[in-house]
Amino acid sequence: MAFMITTASSITMNSSPYPNYMTSSKFGCIPGAMHEHERIKLKQASSWSLQFKAPMKVNATKVDAIDWSMVDPKKESPNMVSDLRVERMIHDDSIFQEIFCIRLYEVGPDETASIETLMNHLQETTANHMKKSGLMHDGFGFGSEEMSKHNLTWVMAKIQMIVDRYPIWGDIVQMETWKAAHGKNGVCCNLTLHDCKTGEILVRASSYWVMMNTKTRKLSKFPNEVRAKLEQIYVDKPPLIEQDTRTWSKSEEKINEHICKGLKPRWSDLDINQHVNNVKYVGLILESVPKTIIENYEIHSMTLDYYREFTKDNILQSFTSILTNNSDETSNYDIVDCQHLLRFDIDGDNSNIMKGRTRWRLKQGNK
Amino acid sequence: MAFMITTASSITMNSSPYPNYMTSSKFGCIPGAMHEHERIKLKQASSWSLQFKAPMKVNATKVDAIDWSMVDPKKESPNMVSDLRVERMIHDDSIFQEIFCIRLYEVGPDETASIETLMNHLQETTANHMKKSGLMHDGFGFGSEEMSKHNLTWVMAKIQMIVDRYPIWGDIVQMETWKAAHGKNGVCCNLTLHDCKTGEILVRASSYWVMMNTKTRKLSKFPNEVRAKLEQIYVDKPPLIEQDTRTWSKSEEKINEHICKGLKPRWSDLDINQHVNNVKYVGLILESVPKTIIENYEIHSMTLDYYREFTKDNILQSFTSILTNNSDETSNYDIVDCQHLLRFDIDGDNSNIMKGRTRWRLKQGNK
Repeated sequence: MAFMITTASSITMNSSPYPNYMTSSKFGCIPGAMHEHERIKLKQASSWSLQFKAPMKVNATKVDAIDWSMVDPKKESPNMVSDLRVERMIHDDSIFQEIFCIRLYEVGPDETASIETLMNHLQETTANHMKKSGLMHDGFGFGSEEMSKHNLTWVMAKIQMIVDRYPIWGDIVQMETWKAAHGKNGVCCNLTLHDCKTGEILVRASSYWVMMNTKTRKLSKFPNEVRAKLEQIYVDKPPLIEQDTRTWSKSEEKINEHICKGLKPRWSDLDINQHVNNVKYVGLILESVPKTIIENYEIHSMTLDYYREFTKDNILQSFTSILTNNSDETSNYDIVDCQHLLRFDIDGDNSNIMKGRTRWRLKQGNK
Repeated sequence: MAFMITTASSITMNSSPYPNYMTSSKFGCIPGAMHEHERIKLKQASSWSLQFKAPMKVNATKVDAIDWSMVDPKKESPNMVSDLRVERMIHDDSIFQEIFCIRLYEVGPDETASIETLMNHLQETTANHMKKSGLMHDGFGFGSEEMSKHNLTWVMAKIQMIVDRYPIWGDIVQMETWKAAHGKNGVCCNLTLHDCKTGEILVRASSYWVMMNTKTRKLSKFPNEVRAKLEQIYVDKPPLIEQDTRTWSKSEEKINEHICKGLKPRWSDLDINQHVNNVKYVGLILESVPKTIIENYEIHSMTLDYYREFTKDNILQSFTSILTNNSDETSNYDIVDCQHLLRFDIDGDNSNIMKGRTRWRLKQGNK
């Protein structure tokens, strides 16, 4: 076969990195569902936005209403970067919206926003939603006052993402997010990214968050007072993207494998939680993706499972296996599937840090 | 001596990385001036803003005027991240202002914006000012239509920066910039960063830009049509920060030197110019700064001279010398001076990529 096709029968159902907390979810993996990477199922935002009467499409009038009086219209040029960012809660605080602009330092050599940029914005919107809901406060690190009492902080356990189109420098985009319970001790954050000019949905994502004790660095149950706050904003809907619960396939592990050893985190990789931020894992995984793929393809969809945290002092190995039956990865496939592994590069400790899958499509111009 | 004190007599006057273009500037180094790192002289923004009647202090009314109608006031919490970003030209297009918010992924373990974040925002504002002045256009990479005809792009040659206070997550800040000629083939971009809430100036910077031919990768003179456009927006004032033209001091090179070899750029370090972005040089320099300094001190001022570009395929060495006469860098000095060198780690090619100086002060809480 040219690309990996996995049927329901081959799916390991209990593959969550945090089985005690995550797999009991009523929104978790659905027995019998197809989990092909190419067919990560979308619960269309539009279908349930109608039910909630929430403005899932960007309201162009609202965007235009942003204080243009500050800008002298005589001086406007057609190529001006119309850059602004506002946020608001809608529908009884269950949906949170944020508008912002893609910046020059967020785009790569091909002039489109990087996958890390999109993940940064997803993370920012998720955090601001929590902040606005009282689940995160200034002065308490990355958590609420109640979480701080128990030395707890938020960490991401899993993310699934589908990118239909990458925005470019100067594009004004709107992130929209809503949260659902994921088992007793997990939160599923659903996010969409729209182009404010066209209304087009660019990115869809579902990420799963749990709590970690900052002293023991172990996962923790949700304190009752935190759960009570969360339940006020939960939307009782399944994840936007159906969970892909496949594990790293050993049978495919040896197909055209690429390894990058001795990877070292930088100071700038550390976040407010004193560890390497989950977004940086993606950059480390990309280090083992062959140049020919990076330069000619772009990530269309991605599933990342986070198992361990690490810091500046750790040295890592990054693995990428290309899931084709052809050893020549430079062939002009329209789609390339990869699986990834990030683990410690320490004598006696090769523990897994992250496992993931990516589907790449040819960039425009390479077709 | 405890810290490096350099007098005017010891300054090498012609130390610009691009001597053909940069040193003929009428705003260049001033003979006889003191160039101590601790006394980088500030041309106070306030002194000449009065002359221009430009609102150098943030106008709180303007900030408040930004479409708060989008946000339901009943839902406002005191800890809401009031996040927005607008831009405008003032004073006949000679001064450009941009308001934005510090995001979670832009702060480090100590919860303040990183030095790279500040440099990213300086770069973004500089680029947007050029874009708005017709000196940079979408579809022509990092340059204008006229530059594109000559295969030219903008590159930064030098930056000097003084940080009075680092903003934190959620802070709304305003960047303000104006440009001056720097010799015939250089532009000096002057920038200040204000806290929108307090009006306090947080950061001052002067950066110097030249043009590079994207085919030959060599520096280029300014085409006449580009110079004509630039001259329309130039402000005939000296740089905000007086140029520090000292070279790497060989006599101090061996004092308490720290080396980090085998540094590899990542895919995410590459920018629209297909090379490692100038902001990423800082992250690579920080890799050779001892942990005890990174954790206990913060950069107060910085001068970086850029000599060469490099890409993902290059391997680098980063050097930091601590300029004290005490070999124990963990001593509780209030101020620590360092000099830095970034160069290729290639057999037969140890060319310098960047030289720099930093002054660090104890973080709050470590005093």
